[in-house]
Amino acid sequence: MTKVSVVAGGAGFIAQSLIDELLLEQRFVFVIDNLCRGKRSFLNRYRTDNRVKFYEGDLSSRKSCQTAFKTAKKFGNIDEIWHMAANSDIAAGVYDADIDVRNTFLTTVELLNSAKLFNVKRFYFASSSAVYGDHGGSKLSELTGPLAPISNYGAMKLASEALIYVASQSDLSQACIYRFPNVVGLPATHGVIFDFINKLMADPKTLKVLGDGFQKKIYLHVTELVDAMMTVRKLLPDRSLEVINIGPNDSGVSVKSIANLVVRRLGVKAKIIYGTGSRGWLGDVPKFQYSTKKMELLYGWKPKLRSRQAIELAVNEIAAAYGL
Amino acid sequence: MTKVSVVAGGAGFIAQSLIDELLLEQRFVFVIDNLCRGKRSFLNRYRTDNRVKFYEGDLSSRKSCQTAFKTAKKFGNIDEIWHMAANSDIAAGVYDADIDVRNTFLTTVELLNSAKLFNVKRFYFASSSAVYGDHGGSKLSELTGPLAPISNYGAMKLASEALIYVASQSDLSQACIYRFPNVVGLPATHGVIFDFINKLMADPKTLKVLGDGFQKKIYLHVTELVDAMMTVRKLLPDRSLEVINIGPNDSGVSVKSIANLVVRRLGVKAKIIYGTGSRGWLGDVPKFQYSTKKMELLYGWKPKLRSRQAIELAVNEIAAAYGL
Repeated sequence: MTKVSVVAGGAGFIAQSLIDELLLEQRFVFVIDNLCRGKRSFLNRYRTDNRVKFYEGDLSSRKSCQTAFKTAKKFGNIDEIWHMAANSDIAAGVYDADIDVRNTFLTTVELLNSAKLFNVKRFYFASSSAVYGDHGGSKLSELTGPLAPISNYGAMKLASEALIYVASQSDLSQACIYRFPNVVGLPATHGVIFDFINKLMADPKTLKVLGDGFQKKIYLHVTELVDAMMTVRKLLPDRSLEVINIGPNDSGVSVKSIANLVVRRLGVKAKIIYGTGSRGWLGDVPKFQYSTKKMELLYGWKPKLRSRQAIELAVNEIAAAYGL
Repeated sequence: MTKVSVVAGGAGFIAQSLIDELLLEQRFVFVIDNLCRGKRSFLNRYRTDNRVKFYEGDLSSRKSCQTAFKTAKKFGNIDEIWHMAANSDIAAGVYDADIDVRNTFLTTVELLNSAKLFNVKRFYFASSSAVYGDHGGSKLSELTGPLAPISNYGAMKLASEALIYVASQSDLSQACIYRFPNVVGLPATHGVIFDFINKLMADPKTLKVLGDGFQKKIYLHVTELVDAMMTVRKLLPDRSLEVINIGPNDSGVSVKSIANLVVRRLGVKAKIIYGTGSRGWLGDVPKFQYSTKKMELLYGWKPKLRSRQAIELAVNEIAAAYGL
């Protein structure tokens, strides 16, 4: 019987690289997305591929989630759920917790509910380094506490993790909580490179940067991220729950460096104007890096690109996609 | 202007001791409760006291929460929220996450929303040792990670903590997350002593115990818990968020000891029958203790009663309340 992967948030940025990998395993990919952040057009390349099915639905609604799973079941045996659905606009959720409660957390509640109902035993979750909060740039491991998120996005990723822990005690046979750093690449939908390029296209003479530019974070290219996720999934024993940081083992790249890189790549003579304050927005963690030792030691995996190289690649890719 | 304390879950067990303390401060106490676990009759003693107002409402509903706050405002200036509302039946939530999502988590979402809307700057939250999960009985501090709850109750307490962290970055000027151990005393509504006494009243010849009886946890008497909460609230500086374990600094009391104590106190000749397995139920943490150093060092507070003494006192109180 055909193996069906349900990919929640499957019309979003990261899911695009994931779907390609799942198809290599001869799987059927059932994409569910409410298109609030994802785009239908990202899936255009599969339009003639009958191994990918797009379903528009709001996974924070019980009825809609269950209806989606009922539909997915028609295509084979649903044996795994990839939960990539979230409000990826962290700044938006800072002033309105409802967005993250609904899109980031209630989607987890409903996906776990459907996992139970439809007897799906494996669950892979796109969590985030935002669950840690602001620890002043010290290297955070999976054992670091307290988890003190400063954005509702991070809070609702943490809340989702907690529910997955619990479900892994009973309903699920395998669960993995992947903690992502900043992820870059195509198709770009948000993030610092995307913002800078869009700003410069609107006004090539000035680039206004949020915050003082000294924010320094780690970056991973989306293709490497997906490779890491697939590696853990392959090696993870049955009846286990894994929580793992994925990212480069470096101290990151500053926003200032990214601004300079983008300006140079676009060949514009823009004046870069910095804001004040160490945070780009309320809920922004100014300095962030974490320990990736667990990933290296347990799974023998590390990215080929350092943060700076990932940024350079993504800047080139995104600029090229815009025809620049 | 009269200072109003909103006490969410104010008809429940722990709130009863809290209300007494708040009244000593000449405050007006506005109790909100959906009576799903709390009892209207617990508040009977305040029936003629015009400083306590009971309001029946479901705090997981936005409309109902806001209506409650609108009513509370009529009595003075709401300057603090005590969030004691939760599904305290941990076992019930294990098979149905919805109970904890609604009663334990969405109540937090709505109370924080109303805090913002009604400009209430101080928020005190009844969290739980259940946020830690099962760490095999090792001493857990507030810095321990990962937080890996094994009950939906613990998961939704953790989720609530995360939202409070975020709110303390912007809307709130003072927030305290109190992590409770097992709390005992009157008026009993649930818990091991209450269960044993009820079982023995129904059948004085046998006492069936969930699990093998070797579960060993720490216990705190409710009057000491409230004393600890008031102490932190008094000493906590403005513009701060505190997360703190409250409990005795001992290794706890076994369920076996409690069973023997209850049988002896009731003067019955019951055969105690133990179950199998180290857990009383799925989601039960078999061995639990934690570090209370932070509470001792920062706030100079520790309980007068050790776990065993708290249990003895509560057994006597509850038996006496039943006329036994």
